[in-house]
Amino acid sequence: MKRISPKAEIAKTAIIHDDVEIEENVVVHDYVVIYPGTVVKARAEIYDHCVLGKLPTSPGSTARTYSSEYGKTVIGGNCILCPGVVLYTGTTIGHNTLLGDYCSIREKCVIGDYCIISRNVSVNYETTIGNHTKIMDNSHITGNMKIGNHVFISVLVASTNDNSMGRDDDAVKHLAGPVVEDYVTIGAGASLLPGVVVGRNAIIGASALVTKNVPAGKVVMGVPARVIRDI
Amino acid sequence: MKRISPKAEIAKTAIIHDDVEIEENVVVHDYVVIYPGTVVKARAEIYDHCVLGKLPTSPGSTARTYSSEYGKTVIGGNCILCPGVVLYTGTTIGHNTLLGDYCSIREKCVIGDYCIISRNVSVNYETTIGNHTKIMDNSHITGNMKIGNHVFISVLVASTNDNSMGRDDDAVKHLAGPVVEDYVTIGAGASLLPGVVVGRNAIIGASALVTKNVPAGKVVMGVPARVIRDI
Amino acid sequence: MKRISPKAEIAKTAIIHDDVEIEENVVVHDYVVIYPGTVVKARAEIYDHCVLGKLPTSPGSTARTYSSEYGKTVIGGNCILCPGVVLYTGTTIGHNTLLGDYCSIREKCVIGDYCIISRNVSVNYETTIGNHTKIMDNSHITGNMKIGNHVFISVLVASTNDNSMGRDDDAVKHLAGPVVEDYVTIGAGASLLPGVVVGRNAIIGASALVTKNVPAGKVVMGVPARVIRDI
Repeated sequence: MKRISPKAEIAKTAIIHDDVEIEENVVVHDYVVIYPGTVVKARAEIYDHCVLGKLPTSPGSTARTYSSEYGKTVIGGNCILCPGVVLYTGTTIGHNTLLGDYCSIREKCVIGDYCIISRNVSVNYETTIGNHTKIMDNSHITGNMKIGNHVFISVLVASTNDNSMGRDDDAVKHLAGPVVEDYVTIGAGASLLPGVVVGRNAIIGASALVTKNVPAGKVVMGVPARVIRDI
Repeated sequence: MKRISPKAEIAKTAIIHDDVEIEENVVVHDYVVIYPGTVVKARAEIYDHCVLGKLPTSPGSTARTYSSEYGKTVIGGNCILCPGVVLYTGTTIGHNTLLGDYCSIREKCVIGDYCIISRNVSVNYETTIGNHTKIMDNSHITGNMKIGNHVFISVLVASTNDNSMGRDDDAVKHLAGPVVEDYVTIGAGASLLPGVVVGRNAIIGASALVTKNVPAGKVVMGVPARVIRDI
Repeated sequence: MKRISPKAEIAKTAIIHDDVEIEENVVVHDYVVIYPGTVVKARAEIYDHCVLGKLPTSPGSTARTYSSEYGKTVIGGNCILCPGVVLYTGTTIGHNTLLGDYCSIREKCVIGDYCIISRNVSVNYETTIGNHTKIMDNSHITGNMKIGNHVFISVLVASTNDNSMGRDDDAVKHLAGPVVEDYVTIGAGASLLPGVVVGRNAIIGASALVTKNVPAGKVVMGVPARVIRDI
């Protein structure tokens, strides 16, 4: 069953699969594809070629296996999804959040309000991101990561969650995404190793390699990163 | 009003909004979307799924605000835009330039002739790029950056323009993109901090972090980058 | 001539050009474009907006020139191509391989079976990748590279093949992609310089810059990378 507000503006070329709900004053541009289980809340704007609510699937080459049932995918009120955004099923986006061109967010993530997830950012499964957080272009956010409020992650930042680096298929059972607390700033080109905790209001310098926990309020730099000073 | 040359070859599935001009012998492939204010000059080829002349918009999560009026977007003669290229309104691309798959260029940029902006490259607003310049795959070019002629920027290069790293919303008033002079070469994985000037014909080594100006004709390497030798 | 199995499930919006073969139980989603010379083998699933079998073309800004004839592009049985994948003509993908959202693979590559090429990965021309190899999100694989079996390449890894870094147009005649032997692991944010050989079962640490050959079974780290220990 589809529930589409008569006050929504849907391009004729948009493909709306069954079991989709679109609230009032939503705008859906051309060639968008919306899969079952998706709710688009009031006044959100979905630009051309977005794909929303996609099932994760595997041809047998992934360590994880997937359910073939659609979850609930929610795009919050006033969000803007730029061209080509891909959202996987079961992910929730808060209100007033901007998703940049071609960013892709995997299943079961929770993204907050007033965030920016910028162009070409790839976010893996089951990650949570707070409110007012910005993740800039071409960065990768790993699975099972926890990112707080008012965090700024610059461009081309890498994060990882698998200490075995793909060498142990059982590693999927004990993956450890980094934890990034509120008000943290991470510079361009930095990398976070699995399980590191970056304390509140810390600053990670550009190109830094974070191999261990960073205390709150400290500035770290270098490869590997070392504490340079207090904020 | 649309002005489409009868000698242009436009796929039936292309969406051409009002106020678009397409010159002779242009080829527009399937599922392309062209927004108002866009001019595509003679013999350019626009591959499938490109989105041209898009307005920048904000749900209130960005520090910048935007005009809701379309500017003039120009794609020069003989250009090739590969699948999924996104151009924002008010950007001008010179002639004989190649834009790779899924590269995205924000509003009010000026890109020269005979350039390559390769796959997944994201270019921010109001940046200028000269002629015969190549920016390779998955790199990010920040806003307000000035890049000269015959520059080569390798893959996964990061550039930044905000010394506050998102910590100061007023920073949008005094952003400082790097300046890259003619004939500069920047290696893979390098990062440029805000406002640095890279002098003519300098070479930045792979993985280098450029924290201060680089004199013309010098080779720099390391994190942070230091002068190693003359060219 | 098209040869499309009556047992294939093709969305009405898919554009299938001439000289395409689609085997039984293939699923082609909406707004896919398939160019001539493409074969999609049994049970492969092609998600929305993929572009398969595209010709490489040049507006005169590239050092290479291209044939205007389509080669043979093969997608193996049981493969899954996520939304927006771009494959260039003459590339072969083995069976049971997953291509992530918006990955792009240039012409004349050979990718093996049971591989993952993840989101936003760009692969250049004439590269070969073995079986059971994973290349994670936002990495770049250069042209003429040889990657073995059971290799793991993490996120935001850069690789290069041109020692002149674009300074010599004749360099296209003697490009040297890195060689990555079987069972190698490469950490997040690492960079490989042209022509390096990474020996069997070696580990490259995150953020490392590989400037020379890495012996088999060694762990290397740092900028530039140095041998730290045996596996």
